[in-house]
Amino acid sequence: MALIVHKYGGTSMGSTERIRNVAKRVAKWARAGHQMIVVPSAMSGETNRLLALAKELSPTPATPDLERELDMIAATGEQVSVGLLAIALQAEGVGSVSYAGWQVPIRTDFAYTKARIESIDDAKVRADLTAGRVVIITGFQGVDAQGNITTLGRGGSDTSAVAVAAAMRAAECLIYTDVDGVYTTDPRIVPEARRLHTVSFEEMLEMASLGSKVLQIRSVEFAGKYRVPLRVLSSFTPWDIDVDEEARSGTLITFEEDPTMEQAVVSGIAFNRDEAKISLLGVPDKPGVAFQILGPVAEANIDVDVIIQNMSHEGKTDFSFTVHRNDYAKTVELLKARVLPTTGAAELVGDTKICKVSIVGIGMRSHVGIASKMFRTLSEEGINIQMITTSEIKTSVVIDEKYMELAVRALHKAFELEQGLV
Amino acid sequence: MALIVHKYGGTSMGSTERIRNVAKRVAKWARAGHQMIVVPSAMSGETNRLLALAKELSPTPATPDLERELDMIAATGEQVSVGLLAIALQAEGVGSVSYAGWQVPIRTDFAYTKARIESIDDAKVRADLTAGRVVIITGFQGVDAQGNITTLGRGGSDTSAVAVAAAMRAAECLIYTDVDGVYTTDPRIVPEARRLHTVSFEEMLEMASLGSKVLQIRSVEFAGKYRVPLRVLSSFTPWDIDVDEEARSGTLITFEEDPTMEQAVVSGIAFNRDEAKISLLGVPDKPGVAFQILGPVAEANIDVDVIIQNMSHEGKTDFSFTVHRNDYAKTVELLKARVLPTTGAAELVGDTKICKVSIVGIGMRSHVGIASKMFRTLSEEGINIQMITTSEIKTSVVIDEKYMELAVRALHKAFELEQGLV
Repeated sequence: MALIVHKYGGTSMGSTERIRNVAKRVAKWARAGHQMIVVPSAMSGETNRLLALAKELSPTPATPDLERELDMIAATGEQVSVGLLAIALQAEGVGSVSYAGWQVPIRTDFAYTKARIESIDDAKVRADLTAGRVVIITGFQGVDAQGNITTLGRGGSDTSAVAVAAAMRAAECLIYTDVDGVYTTDPRIVPEARRLHTVSFEEMLEMASLGSKVLQIRSVEFAGKYRVPLRVLSSFTPWDIDVDEEARSGTLITFEEDPTMEQAVVSGIAFNRDEAKISLLGVPDKPGVAFQILGPVAEANIDVDVIIQNMSHEGKTDFSFTVHRNDYAKTVELLKARVLPTTGAAELVGDTKICKVSIVGIGMRSHVGIASKMFRTLSEEGINIQMITTSEIKTSVVIDEKYMELAVRALHKAFELEQGLV
Repeated sequence: MALIVHKYGGTSMGSTERIRNVAKRVAKWARAGHQMIVVPSAMSGETNRLLALAKELSPTPATPDLERELDMIAATGEQVSVGLLAIALQAEGVGSVSYAGWQVPIRTDFAYTKARIESIDDAKVRADLTAGRVVIITGFQGVDAQGNITTLGRGGSDTSAVAVAAAMRAAECLIYTDVDGVYTTDPRIVPEARRLHTVSFEEMLEMASLGSKVLQIRSVEFAGKYRVPLRVLSSFTPWDIDVDEEARSGTLITFEEDPTMEQAVVSGIAFNRDEAKISLLGVPDKPGVAFQILGPVAEANIDVDVIIQNMSHEGKTDFSFTVHRNDYAKTVELLKARVLPTTGAAELVGDTKICKVSIVGIGMRSHVGIASKMFRTLSEEGINIQMITTSEIKTSVVIDEKYMELAVRALHKAFELEQGLV
């Protein structure tokens, strides 16, 4: 007897047969007495198909006028999904109504193709729920103050679901995906990896941003900000499994630390090889040098992740940072043209064959020696650490990418994640 | 230098290549100094694809809730079209903006899947035109007073275009189709059939309702009601033909009779074989018998077309009418169950192998002897007339369907339509 939001991805909505299964699952929850809101994505492949049509016609470069039309086109994918799911629910004998983002309305800013949700009006939806209907709302989209359709960018349906759950003060937002939860690390690398029953949203945020791509990071931020309990679970379980069993499955992302629970110090090992490292050697060490180097990079809209400035020797220092591999060539070019000549750096060296491995855990806040245990483990495996960066709940190292799997397995074992309690 | 509305059908919008051609054609008109509004249909096949998906999931019977969702789904086809066309125009260097029906808004009643337009707000569109933009509006759809998406039913894009032209007081509404105009009759039956340069909207209404399916009949009614000059022309001419030449091509459907023009008495020969005839023989001839027979038929939502009641002999009469062939079996069943027992009719006979052939012409109003010339022509060909019905501007006969082509050819020749002036 609670207000529950379900979110289904494009794969779950990929055919009428699958949509029928989603409808049966939602109907089961409705019959168990829950008030149900469902946020489905477009049928898999549909958004790509629509944007490919647009691309065939697009002028270059992109303008706001063009992006407005891209949103107009892309938003139809979800509109078809909600209508089909509403029909499938009616076929199950469950009252239902679908809404496009503008009908709710879900108000966003004016940033076409990457809009942000500003507010959600809950009146219409609440009236339908009270009338006993399942409400189905398009993910991925909203409407700006001028009545133009906007989309939230790729993966935006997760964010839509969480935002709707927040606006409706839902008891829980269930994100159905093709994995059955959040793991201590990628089971393809460490077969002993364990599904976490709960994970704090801060840990999830680190896991997501570090490449454990279970959820879109903005949706996790949203969930944290509005304290929406979020559950990641599998859409591949049979639709007719017991509803209470299903309600306990997957991984719950909580915004509360449970003090009574035995909290593992480290919850998971995250990793990615999306980054590249750039170092400026022999930079004269004077105030403002970091800004002098990174200012032009930021101006070019290039995201910088890890930043390290070494101790100074004889008035010279080495300055290193990482960027996304896709931005590597552009960044090197930029530095050579605009930074090297003015900073008086001796040399620029880069490396695209790196990876970042991180231990993540909210327990690290209150435990010392976690980082040193990480470093010792890597050292015992003969892995050289190139960069280190730390936060309250994670420690990341940049290493040669050829050691990635070895590092992840060693750390998973060292922190006993295969047998944890979480 | 006028405000012009263009309407393009699904075939014209059938691929990105074709959409690019539509954009080039519209751009040409815009560059000639016209203010342009374009109403495209969904890409050909798209509405069928969407409704087939819905059908796979549909419960039976249809309910308003289900029809609401069908409209939600079907409306996306046109939304994709307008976005793509807007992009194609921008690629041509022409400023453009697309609107879904609800964004204009185009207000309709609440009749999902067959809504009627109630009003169109011209403020937004007018502002865009003044700013020099081409405005592209979805055909086929609108929004009801509760903010639900509605569709106008099949062929509704013609009606949308005319309604927009009426609301905007456009100089002309150009309907681009796969035929190059309205003909004196079907050229597949009479190779000498001639394209009419103009036709009155009343004649067009009769032609359309009689099966010359160039335009959706509701759009012609709309054009007549709001006195919108409507032109039917081909979308298969090269996009770069001279704009003034294009503006004179096709057939103009006018709402004014031009008294200076030599008006042909008969403008065209229409025909269809969609109907079936039902006769009740030996019906006691007393007041109320027509209602007694047709009341139950109307209640069952069956449209009746031609109705004939013969002279009474010895207190008995024969009563005949035609219905659409699809309704024939249902009508016969209904009459047997509910009408035959109460009217005391002796016998019910039916015939599905009939056709209706009509001569249509606004000139008939002021000319006598036109109908008798028709009857003589058919008689000379040995064609027996089963039913006759007349109006101010048309005379229709029901005959054996095997004579249809013969009758059409003979009448086309008798009224000298191959060499007319119109």
